[in-house]
Amino acid sequence: MILTDSLLDFFLETRKHSEDICEPLEIEDYVVQPVVDVSPPKWHLGHTTWFFEEFILKPYAKDYTVFDEDFSFVFNSYYETVGKRVVRSDRGNLSRPSVKKIYEYRAYVTEGIKTLFEAKSNKELNSLLEIGIHHEKQHQELLLSDIKYILGNNPLLPSYSGEFKDHPIETHQQDWITLEEGIYEIGHNTEDFCYDNEQGRHKVFLHGFEISNKLITNGEFMAFMEDGGYQRFDIWHAEGWDWVNQNEITAPLYWHNIDGNWFHYTAQGLQKVTNDAPLAHVSYFEAFAYAQWSGHRLPTEFEWEAAQAFFPWGKRWEWTESAYLPYPNYQKPDGALGEYNGKFMVNQKVLRGGSVATPIKHTRHTYRNFFHPQLRWQFTGLRLAK
Amino acid sequence: MILTDSLLDFFLETRKHSEDICEPLEIEDYVVQPVVDVSPPKWHLGHTTWFFEEFILKPYAKDYTVFDEDFSFVFNSYYETVGKRVVRSDRGNLSRPSVKKIYEYRAYVTEGIKTLFEAKSNKELNSLLEIGIHHEKQHQELLLSDIKYILGNNPLLPSYSGEFKDHPIETHQQDWITLEEGIYEIGHNTEDFCYDNEQGRHKVFLHGFEISNKLITNGEFMAFMEDGGYQRFDIWHAEGWDWVNQNEITAPLYWHNIDGNWFHYTAQGLQKVTNDAPLAHVSYFEAFAYAQWSGHRLPTEFEWEAAQAFFPWGKRWEWTESAYLPYPNYQKPDGALGEYNGKFMVNQKVLRGGSVATPIKHTRHTYRNFFHPQLRWQFTGLRLAK
Amino acid sequence: MILTDSLLDFFLETRKHSEDICEPLEIEDYVVQPVVDVSPPKWHLGHTTWFFEEFILKPYAKDYTVFDEDFSFVFNSYYETVGKRVVRSDRGNLSRPSVKKIYEYRAYVTEGIKTLFEAKSNKELNSLLEIGIHHEKQHQELLLSDIKYILGNNPLLPSYSGEFKDHPIETHQQDWITLEEGIYEIGHNTEDFCYDNEQGRHKVFLHGFEISNKLITNGEFMAFMEDGGYQRFDIWHAEGWDWVNQNEITAPLYWHNIDGNWFHYTAQGLQKVTNDAPLAHVSYFEAFAYAQWSGHRLPTEFEWEAAQAFFPWGKRWEWTESAYLPYPNYQKPDGALGEYNGKFMVNQKVLRGGSVATPIKHTRHTYRNFFHPQLRWQFTGLRLAK
Amino acid sequence: MILTDSLLDFFLETRKHSEDICEPLEIEDYVVQPVVDVSPPKWHLGHTTWFFEEFILKPYAKDYTVFDEDFSFVFNSYYETVGKRVVRSDRGNLSRPSVKKIYEYRAYVTEGIKTLFEAKSNKELNSLLEIGIHHEKQHQELLLSDIKYILGNNPLLPSYSGEFKDHPIETHQQDWITLEEGIYEIGHNTEDFCYDNEQGRHKVFLHGFEISNKLITNGEFMAFMEDGGYQRFDIWHAEGWDWVNQNEITAPLYWHNIDGNWFHYTAQGLQKVTNDAPLAHVSYFEAFAYAQWSGHRLPTEFEWEAAQAFFPWGKRWEWTESAYLPYPNYQKPDGALGEYNGKFMVNQKVLRGGSVATPIKHTRHTYRNFFHPQLRWQFTGLRLAK
Repeated sequence: MILTDSLLDFFLETRKHSEDICEPLEIEDYVVQPVVDVSPPKWHLGHTTWFFEEFILKPYAKDYTVFDEDFSFVFNSYYETVGKRVVRSDRGNLSRPSVKKIYEYRAYVTEGIKTLFEAKSNKELNSLLEIGIHHEKQHQELLLSDIKYILGNNPLLPSYSGEFKDHPIETHQQDWITLEEGIYEIGHNTEDFCYDNEQGRHKVFLHGFEISNKLITNGEFMAFMEDGGYQRFDIWHAEGWDWVNQNEITAPLYWHNIDGNWFHYTAQGLQKVTNDAPLAHVSYFEAFAYAQWSGHRLPTEFEWEAAQAFFPWGKRWEWTESAYLPYPNYQKPDGALGEYNGKFMVNQKVLRGGSVATPIKHTRHTYRNFFHPQLRWQFTGLRLAK
Repeated sequence: MILTDSLLDFFLETRKHSEDICEPLEIEDYVVQPVVDVSPPKWHLGHTTWFFEEFILKPYAKDYTVFDEDFSFVFNSYYETVGKRVVRSDRGNLSRPSVKKIYEYRAYVTEGIKTLFEAKSNKELNSLLEIGIHHEKQHQELLLSDIKYILGNNPLLPSYSGEFKDHPIETHQQDWITLEEGIYEIGHNTEDFCYDNEQGRHKVFLHGFEISNKLITNGEFMAFMEDGGYQRFDIWHAEGWDWVNQNEITAPLYWHNIDGNWFHYTAQGLQKVTNDAPLAHVSYFEAFAYAQWSGHRLPTEFEWEAAQAFFPWGKRWEWTESAYLPYPNYQKPDGALGEYNGKFMVNQKVLRGGSVATPIKHTRHTYRNFFHPQLRWQFTGLRLAK
Repeated sequence: MILTDSLLDFFLETRKHSEDICEPLEIEDYVVQPVVDVSPPKWHLGHTTWFFEEFILKPYAKDYTVFDEDFSFVFNSYYETVGKRVVRSDRGNLSRPSVKKIYEYRAYVTEGIKTLFEAKSNKELNSLLEIGIHHEKQHQELLLSDIKYILGNNPLLPSYSGEFKDHPIETHQQDWITLEEGIYEIGHNTEDFCYDNEQGRHKVFLHGFEISNKLITNGEFMAFMEDGGYQRFDIWHAEGWDWVNQNEITAPLYWHNIDGNWFHYTAQGLQKVTNDAPLAHVSYFEAFAYAQWSGHRLPTEFEWEAAQAFFPWGKRWEWTESAYLPYPNYQKPDGALGEYNGKFMVNQKVLRGGSVATPIKHTRHTYRNFFHPQLRWQFTGLRLAK
Repeated sequence: MILTDSLLDFFLETRKHSEDICEPLEIEDYVVQPVVDVSPPKWHLGHTTWFFEEFILKPYAKDYTVFDEDFSFVFNSYYETVGKRVVRSDRGNLSRPSVKKIYEYRAYVTEGIKTLFEAKSNKELNSLLEIGIHHEKQHQELLLSDIKYILGNNPLLPSYSGEFKDHPIETHQQDWITLEEGIYEIGHNTEDFCYDNEQGRHKVFLHGFEISNKLITNGEFMAFMEDGGYQRFDIWHAEGWDWVNQNEITAPLYWHNIDGNWFHYTAQGLQKVTNDAPLAHVSYFEAFAYAQWSGHRLPTEFEWEAAQAFFPWGKRWEWTESAYLPYPNYQKPDGALGEYNGKFMVNQKVLRGGSVATPIKHTRHTYRNFFHPQLRWQFTGLRLAK
């Protein structure tokens, strides 16, 4: 548990970081929602603020005046416990509240939290604040992914920011790390913050396996493409094959073939694909097909966690073969925060690691990210096992 | 045909009016597209500008430099002749070009037109300019309707402008105007501007009929609602009845029942419905059902045109019973402008009149507006015949 | 008005004819519904029977015992007045009642009508019986079209019957018939049976026009296809062009290109397309595009009716340019029979003539058939005007 | 491995059993496909026959004459390796081949197999025959489920057969079986037949757990319903809650509330729900919500397999918490048979056990059945763990 003082600093620094991410945007970029999974940046800014207001200020700050009664309807994401809300697919239809108003809302709530925590604090409040901070950090990652989608699907392909490098080169040699069969302990086991879905430290038996010390690169994936990987049904799941055909998928997201050369949209605009950078923006279906094609497989999340100390990670969220399921003795928290993780534990795959878009202090080796298998607007890649 | 000088004034005044309409907006309001029929205001501003650039400046202005090569892709609406374009349903996904950039584009093209027409002019150019002006005027009406939809579907229900009164009261007594059976001449017959679909002045035989001198009012429509008009299948078309049930329609667009009283969203925000104002925002299906319920019918567009001199009109576009079809000897113009009207002559109904949103000098008694029968975001109303 | 004796003969002969149409079928062919517009043959057999039971036997036959109380739910088509019913798209999901049971139902109701009319008859009953007979005749045409669709979309392409020739040759020379401008009388004006939508004999003014004495042939349509007719957006309605592209339409329904030659599915199975037979199975969109391509237009339904005495017709239902609208002074009949025609008068086009599938005594020169513009499973063709 | 003689008996008895299942049907019942997951019975009869023809007779029977070249197109289910096929949703649109023809096809292929195996046999052929037999047995279960759906969704609710009892009573006392934590062996380990997805016997570590010796009964599930189980979002997955609301689910499949009492469609027609029979026809979403509501959970498939010897099972397929994933070292077979299981290992849940519809010799304690979480037309139930 972090002390209140440094927690408040952590809070203020987190609040500022969300706004820093949006600094390069035009007002118009804050508003649009090109597909249902991508929320408008202004929605993220408002929603993360609403989270602090709804779960901390409203119940705990004496005499707190709600900034705007209508905002709960606008900025609730999926908390049935809290009440009605704008349906997700309508977020991009809302021009108001304006960006300016949302920044005022942010300042108002940030100030409210500051005042509250300077006056009093206790373990329960600190714990809620910590959740709110990590919640906002999760949205920072989404902000970067969503902004990339908003700009990368605009026919003008505007660049986002020269400072955010989404395609760093990795040059270390590929090698296989071997783990012996045996019982391994999985799950969170420190006093530090973690989500409910990481808790319930428990044992798993793993058969002996090998796992690569390196992410699959763009160059390696191009070999798959050149070998007809997107045309060979036998290496895909049935649902993956349908997805490829219905969406006419022939390359990772953001890739464009111009006169026979592969380019991709990056934070710096359209650039030539670099062979040595780790592959990004593939779905689980593509990750699985690549593994099949190469004669290997994806690791399970347990193998990944057991082996992670032996290889560098953190540039790409890595698809695993594991479905997103509760750990033994998983306990859903009471109340609205119980809706955070548990209710999504079906039809999703676990990703492990972290990415270039993950804010500092946000990921850890027990962190379980999860998405539907067809999604690829996150900075998702893969690592092989055998 | 208007002389070039006054035509240029007409042009400049029209260009300014579009921007005046948008003056009360926040930047964010320019961007969104809550349903496919509603285009973002910034798209209208860009598209009307592109029209002048594409059809006048590019072919006729010597040494003209295109403002931005990508804009044709972004701002073409439906001209297959001109090339590929952003699909209509994606207009609200484009945050760029920014509003600021589009205003620069407007100034650039307006200046280009001014320079061109000050240097030379001829009948062909004047005719194209006139079409461009009227095209922009059509979009001014759409701008007002679309802005109303954007704000009126926002849960915060922000007002648009205190100056635009969309619900003027009408107090004259209802009366029936009688026309004898006989041959009437229909269609445009002066030198003034009109669209291709009004041309081909021709004769129609009309049986004797009566037409009301007054639009149906909110108060009258409430009587229909109270009598169960939305629950009685026998007064609806089969497709209208499906539309009512699938969309759970129980009142005109923008109406809200609050504690038993009817309010509606207006340019001034949410207001109590006034009995004496003409009804607005009903679909053809609703207009037809109302007429059936009242024991009357809607006029045909020919009856309307034959009788229009005998009653006031211009506050609501009026649904007619006529389908949108070519007049005898209709000639589709050559080239891209031939796509303006002819290709829509199926599955739409004709509306006659004009509305509070129609810019001055834009409508006339031969003007044929047309929409699909379920649409109601325009300022549409009805007048009875028998 | 027909006398009761001959009316009863007409009834019995009509009942038998429906069963004759189904005689070549396997039991399985009676059951399926490959698209929503095509009803299973057993449904037609039951529905036409239910019509007599519901509208004549139930209200007028003393002590009549309903054959099966559940059949009203199964065999009502769209009469909201009469009560709930199986939704149209579910007709092909019903294996029961069995075909055998439906034939028993037919015999039972036929016998009931016979008994009733032998005992008493009057003008009202005769009129209802006449409607029921014509209703069944309409379904005979649908039966033939639906059976063709069921067999013609089966990968085994089984033939239907050697006796039904759906592609008769026409060899007379093409010529233009000229009508002078003037007032013409339109609509039904005899004592014989007609539908409500033909009534209201009235005057229309027609400008002078010419109309072809001959239907467009397969050979002529192939010239359109070879000239890229399906690839030229400028000759299509916008909605037609969308229909072509979304459905990848490249030929009339039932046509197959095998090694460069055009074949089509016919009642005798797959056959080579004959140049000299009138074209069939095109949508209004295709008919319109053909007319545009050839530099002509489709006639209106009024032109067709005014000119029809001067040319042979009856092999193809002919698309007209007219929308399906009520005649002046159209009166919707009271009760359930009022749902027969009036509620469909929106978004449909009028067809005139009749077809190889039309039973004898069923069509006439005032008959108004109507379908949505994209449909083409009926025996639909076209005739040009100018 | 079974000897050839008894294998051939097993084959013949299996072939006969499929036809026995269909014996109570009318011809019409063989044809329809009310939803995409339910195939027409005649398709099952043809497809299981095609499997023997395609994988045994064509490659191995010298001088074998294919029954009908078109049948491969009609009866291939999902084997991309083998070629094109009728899309799944179109199976119910095919009236031909007729039922009679399919029975001829069955007799022809059965005879062909008999002749082949009487002449020669070897391990490879026996293995293929065994797969074909088990494949047909799987389809026997589907046949019963699909027939129930076809009849149970018909408004006439015809009964299927008096002999098939789908709701047997279970009267033993509920008790908890306790297993200690430790390493357990999972997967097939005998010479008998099993599918590829059961192979790869391997170790798993299980924490100590308790599992019920009894399936949840109708009576217990009614308590959940009365307690508002279908209205409480907090016990459902987010996707489950959407499913409940979009489909307006308020009870298990086939249940009808008549005047306050619960009835359900059974093989004997509509009957009152019996409290003491095991619940059937619930989705995974419902099974999970029930477990949440009761304060327990569903077992994993590993817990189930480890504990199964200590409780009776076989009346209901039992939903587990496990996602359908490959076992460690899973090897997909080569060729078309490799498409049998592996390509479905995403987005599905594992069911264990067997059901009243499972043919004898078809299930076993290592058998892994799998379905999407929303499906419930199988005889699916649940058992609790804690």
